[in-house]
Amino acid sequence: MTSREVLVEEGSLCLIYFDERRKYIVRASRGAELHTDKGVIRLEDLIGIPYGSTCRTSIGIRYFVLKPLLVDIVLYGFKRRTQIIYPKDLASIILFSGISSGSIVVEAGTGSGVLTAFLAYLVRPEGKVYSYDISEVNIKVAKRNLELAGLLPYVTLKIKDIREGIDECDVDAVFLDMPDPWNALEASYNSLKSSGILVAFMPTIVQVGKIIKALYEHGGFIKPTIFETLLREYKPSVDELRPRTRMIGHTGYILVTRKILVQ
Amino acid sequence: MTSREVLVEEGSLCLIYFDERRKYIVRASRGAELHTDKGVIRLEDLIGIPYGSTCRTSIGIRYFVLKPLLVDIVLYGFKRRTQIIYPKDLASIILFSGISSGSIVVEAGTGSGVLTAFLAYLVRPEGKVYSYDISEVNIKVAKRNLELAGLLPYVTLKIKDIREGIDECDVDAVFLDMPDPWNALEASYNSLKSSGILVAFMPTIVQVGKIIKALYEHGGFIKPTIFETLLREYKPSVDELRPRTRMIGHTGYILVTRKILVQ
Amino acid sequence: MTSREVLVEEGSLCLIYFDERRKYIVRASRGAELHTDKGVIRLEDLIGIPYGSTCRTSIGIRYFVLKPLLVDIVLYGFKRRTQIIYPKDLASIILFSGISSGSIVVEAGTGSGVLTAFLAYLVRPEGKVYSYDISEVNIKVAKRNLELAGLLPYVTLKIKDIREGIDECDVDAVFLDMPDPWNALEASYNSLKSSGILVAFMPTIVQVGKIIKALYEHGGFIKPTIFETLLREYKPSVDELRPRTRMIGHTGYILVTRKILVQ
Amino acid sequence: MTSREVLVEEGSLCLIYFDERRKYIVRASRGAELHTDKGVIRLEDLIGIPYGSTCRTSIGIRYFVLKPLLVDIVLYGFKRRTQIIYPKDLASIILFSGISSGSIVVEAGTGSGVLTAFLAYLVRPEGKVYSYDISEVNIKVAKRNLELAGLLPYVTLKIKDIREGIDECDVDAVFLDMPDPWNALEASYNSLKSSGILVAFMPTIVQVGKIIKALYEHGGFIKPTIFETLLREYKPSVDELRPRTRMIGHTGYILVTRKILVQ
Repeated sequence: MTSREVLVEEGSLCLIYFDERRKYIVRASRGAELHTDKGVIRLEDLIGIPYGSTCRTSIGIRYFVLKPLLVDIVLYGFKRRTQIIYPKDLASIILFSGISSGSIVVEAGTGSGVLTAFLAYLVRPEGKVYSYDISEVNIKVAKRNLELAGLLPYVTLKIKDIREGIDECDVDAVFLDMPDPWNALEASYNSLKSSGILVAFMPTIVQVGKIIKALYEHGGFIKPTIFETLLREYKPSVDELRPRTRMIGHTGYILVTRKILVQ
Repeated sequence: MTSREVLVEEGSLCLIYFDERRKYIVRASRGAELHTDKGVIRLEDLIGIPYGSTCRTSIGIRYFVLKPLLVDIVLYGFKRRTQIIYPKDLASIILFSGISSGSIVVEAGTGSGVLTAFLAYLVRPEGKVYSYDISEVNIKVAKRNLELAGLLPYVTLKIKDIREGIDECDVDAVFLDMPDPWNALEASYNSLKSSGILVAFMPTIVQVGKIIKALYEHGGFIKPTIFETLLREYKPSVDELRPRTRMIGHTGYILVTRKILVQ
Repeated sequence: MTSREVLVEEGSLCLIYFDERRKYIVRASRGAELHTDKGVIRLEDLIGIPYGSTCRTSIGIRYFVLKPLLVDIVLYGFKRRTQIIYPKDLASIILFSGISSGSIVVEAGTGSGVLTAFLAYLVRPEGKVYSYDISEVNIKVAKRNLELAGLLPYVTLKIKDIREGIDECDVDAVFLDMPDPWNALEASYNSLKSSGILVAFMPTIVQVGKIIKALYEHGGFIKPTIFETLLREYKPSVDELRPRTRMIGHTGYILVTRKILVQ
Repeated sequence: MTSREVLVEEGSLCLIYFDERRKYIVRASRGAELHTDKGVIRLEDLIGIPYGSTCRTSIGIRYFVLKPLLVDIVLYGFKRRTQIIYPKDLASIILFSGISSGSIVVEAGTGSGVLTAFLAYLVRPEGKVYSYDISEVNIKVAKRNLELAGLLPYVTLKIKDIREGIDECDVDAVFLDMPDPWNALEASYNSLKSSGILVAFMPTIVQVGKIIKALYEHGGFIKPTIFETLLREYKPSVDELRPRTRMIGHTGYILVTRKILVQ
């Protein structure tokens, strides 16, 4: 074993990877088993082997033991209570919000904690995510998910209606993923530091029309940038290289704007 | 002035924002001026005002003084020597590579330093980016750009052909944006820690076909995920809400895979 | 009943329309029944009622009786033996080929006869479609489908390998939907009238690369136009207007070129 | 010269084709000349040569003489007074409307006559297009364009507001390309034969929302199908096969529905 091999420790997460459509997030732990249609995996056996190893199930099917990225943990390990934001949208939301290590951000609603997790992952270790949701059950599920991902220390979860105000001041960015983001504009404005970023994610174009109208009436933000993204996957075949037949045709619209000082 | 207002300090970067199509990156400094078709701005006047302020040019045209995000600095402040990777692609590359604060990554080629800058921004303050390019001029331009963005401390620039080997070991991710990434597979494999991420960005589908073939022949990587992204911007109008007439129809294909241990 | 109402005659086709996802092509005929999960429809009852009528099934579920368009007959009435060309692609193929009433065209392969049907529909009543396929079963299925659509009189079906030559001369257009269209270029060139149109439809980008190479080597065609089309459907909802979540991400690439005289 | 060569007759239209970006529609006629940046072409010289011929300009630049398709005449020969419907949309509109030789159709507004031309081209020789526009200048330009394309005999142009009623009864399809198509629903319903097709083309999503609402309130149409199409062109290069960098990101939304009998 060379120095390049990082070993799986007891209690750490692994991505069990059979193929593109068969992936599992498990914890390397004594006594537990993963039952799949490809056979059984004793999770105890994962302890001490290097990440990247090739193993076989009880019936001899090959799989790889990978160190999971956050996107793996979210897609294959998170419990979902609500429609989640897709990775393609998380990617754009993060990049255009400009957040990074040390940022202080506010989010509503928490939902299943998917965006929360990515925000926490990026603002670590000094930054902080304040996440609001009016549903106690959502907060409970999100807490479980964030714990799984090891990101709970960077998040403060609040069962509270963001439309009634944000407790935090001078925050770098506010992220709104809620049915009526236009009703949280005033609270967001008050919470943001000057020149701070507001991002909203909305599934319907009707919502986009309403928030644009509300933004212009409010006056405290620059003209928003609005876009949607499409991710088109290809079949990784040498002889039949082509996009996959089916794709996600729509998830939602992303709006990004910035607070300006109103005189 | 409330506590929410962050003041522009002498020597810091500002985004001068007239509208979506007219943006400038400037440094607040004594004696300097920005000449635009909307009038002149004395950059000295920016010192001490809060970010988010509304100001007027010598001929009375209104603009906002915003705190620039990295994406602003890259798009409006970087000198470009080569075709740069677009923000939509940077976003996906970053998210699917799983890097964050503390990651150690390798990149080739440096080009104008755009991907370098985003990688550095995210791995800060403890992580590191090692960036290879065979062109001395590219490295020079990238150095200037990274200095502008304040990210040079997190980057080691190398005038070296990555196809001949990577000096760093056990890295978390390798990013290839070069004409023939298939010729850097062996070097990437040797540099990556086990289960580490390989990302390649390629403008043509011909390149995609070649790297798939090379990956399968190499055998040390899982089946790659290949995709392209499209970003479609909307006109932010209440009465005429619609996508913009023209869009970028293609930038490149992104390939993501992971190192596995070959027995 | 006003003059605007066209009555369903015995033996004519009807589109039974419950909703966007539940459509059936039936023939109004005595003694027959359509059994659906929404109840039974006695097809005899359709005779004599006007197209556009609202009716109810045996269990009281409402449906409409519509006069089927060719696209309905193809999608809901044709037997499919092969992957068919989608309406979005048929639309572009037809428009960019310039064919209309009176055109003489050649096609290979016949497949299930879907493109054949649209070509026949447009060249009627004076034009003609010559359709080649090497599979006897394909020709049989296509014949049944074209009969259903009432278009067989305008088509000559041939069990023959188009790569070995086309019998018809001076044709207006040649349509290639076959695995190796590059092997039919010489035959197509000889069959086309000067300035005539060649269209090829190919699922993979690998095929596109091969036909481009073959076209340039042949020299008898102008530089081809190559494109793909995407059709994105919207949920027709007043309050939740948005694209549908899932869409077809890929069908194939369309190539269009024209014969020139080689001196 | 073989029988495959069709000769250019005096007075007939030709497509002068230099390359994908340089195309001209001219009439082969004595005394006239075409001046281009690639040199001069004496249009008299075209008379009697076969379509598909390779010729050279006064300064020796090569071009092809092609028989123009309708799409060429429209794109390179029509005078444009208004934003025209793009070929990709014309293709879908035509296919999903089901019209063909013999159809009787109504259209508003005429605009520059582009959709009018394609409708006329397809309903020929027995069908008819009735085209309404409130602008006398539009009708004049459309008349000139339809004459150029040889399609005027199949069209009746009317300077009339379609919202006040359609003179024709029992028509197969109505096409609305006007700012407020919802105000023409009642007129369209009365003009259509039962089960007939209504198509609307709208640039903004705001219009789509309004027409959906109006359709549901009217009650005389099935639930509409709404979609947009994207056409993505590829660079026809063997070594650099890839989509073109820029594309048209939006033209408009297409709505298709059918008249049902209201009891």
